[in-house]
Amino acid sequence: MDAAVLLGGPKEEWPADLKEQLKQAQAKGDLLIGVDRGALLLLELGFKPDLAIGDFDSLKADELAWVEGTVADIRYSVPKKDWTDSELMLGIAFGDYKIDQLKVYGATGGRLDHAAINAFGILNPDLRKYANQLTLIDKQNLIFYRQAGSYEIKQQDYSYFGVTCLLPVEDLTIEGALYDLAPYSGDYLRSFTSNEFLPDKDSCRLSLKKGLVAVVYSKDLDRYQMA
Amino acid sequence: MDAAVLLGGPKEEWPADLKEQLKQAQAKGDLLIGVDRGALLLLELGFKPDLAIGDFDSLKADELAWVEGTVADIRYSVPKKDWTDSELMLGIAFGDYKIDQLKVYGATGGRLDHAAINAFGILNPDLRKYANQLTLIDKQNLIFYRQAGSYEIKQQDYSYFGVTCLLPVEDLTIEGALYDLAPYSGDYLRSFTSNEFLPDKDSCRLSLKKGLVAVVYSKDLDRYQMA
Repeated sequence: MDAAVLLGGPKEEWPADLKEQLKQAQAKGDLLIGVDRGALLLLELGFKPDLAIGDFDSLKADELAWVEGTVADIRYSVPKKDWTDSELMLGIAFGDYKIDQLKVYGATGGRLDHAAINAFGILNPDLRKYANQLTLIDKQNLIFYRQAGSYEIKQQDYSYFGVTCLLPVEDLTIEGALYDLAPYSGDYLRSFTSNEFLPDKDSCRLSLKKGLVAVVYSKDLDRYQMA
Repeated sequence: MDAAVLLGGPKEEWPADLKEQLKQAQAKGDLLIGVDRGALLLLELGFKPDLAIGDFDSLKADELAWVEGTVADIRYSVPKKDWTDSELMLGIAFGDYKIDQLKVYGATGGRLDHAAINAFGILNPDLRKYANQLTLIDKQNLIFYRQAGSYEIKQQDYSYFGVTCLLPVEDLTIEGALYDLAPYSGDYLRSFTSNEFLPDKDSCRLSLKKGLVAVVYSKDLDRYQMA
């Protein structure tokens, strides 16, 4: 089973068609998960979360009552905990619910301490085995993660892609893209950005012998996006 | 000498008082730097950049002419290069101009492959010696970097702070904050988020024996920021 998760990041960063994406997820029987305020936001969008996770301390009493009266499985987290709500969600989704592919919305923008944990929580040693199953989606980016292996990276509705080394990599290679990458090994958070697919190809090949990378697809939304 | 830099990230992420901050920087004789579209944006804001860096390929001919006719020192980067414009800027600012403290605006939001290189470019082995001199500022976050050492971390106009390990750390410690951190050593991109200053203290102490961390100050802008 797959799942779609809404975190509490700012609405301005949601994909424009979030509601449609969630409808499609629901139609194919995906689990719907709301984390903290994300549970309320799902209800406000007209979706009943199957699972809600968080300390819900940002919700008013009536909002919390709505969540508690509607959601079948609620997992309360405790403040001052070792795991953040975002990591807890990954553990429950992959560990308890055996989710195959997990799409996460509301992970970016706003407070960058939250965005960091949303993007990097999968590196938790107890969670990183699930890295290949995680995708983050916002209004102009799609991020997925790849552990050691060889992968066909398909063009999607984005103009650019970049690869960021999240754990030390050995022989990271990109073949068949605009900027190929000869086997690169490195031990720090290095990003290879602004790559593109070739006009006559709808995919390229990414491989690494060791490590973990994030692949970031992105597009410009307006003329101010270029840096 | 200090410097203020504007990158090409979306205006929506700028601090609300960016113009005022740049005016103050200019008044105290700071160098003003525009990177790529950031050079044009500075001109549009009424500031004459002292230095412009980039390939400027997103600028129209008349926009580029404005930049070229106004800015004394222009450094052209080449596409398909090893260093991104953002890294090139760090190298020129710290290496050529011997900048002491560098404040960077327009680094966040938009394309996350750009945001990643803007936030992590300082990890380039040729640049990381300057990490303590770099600060990124957007509308609700302020990020600075600390290498091995012991530091007083002062409360500013932000509610929360987090610490993210960007290079493997030894004995990372936080003392005198809401959530103290006992000496932590770890080799991956771990974030300790949502920490707060104590009501009766205007600072806490951060120390690490080895490694490099980002300290992220953040605040909620509205009720949807909580995650």
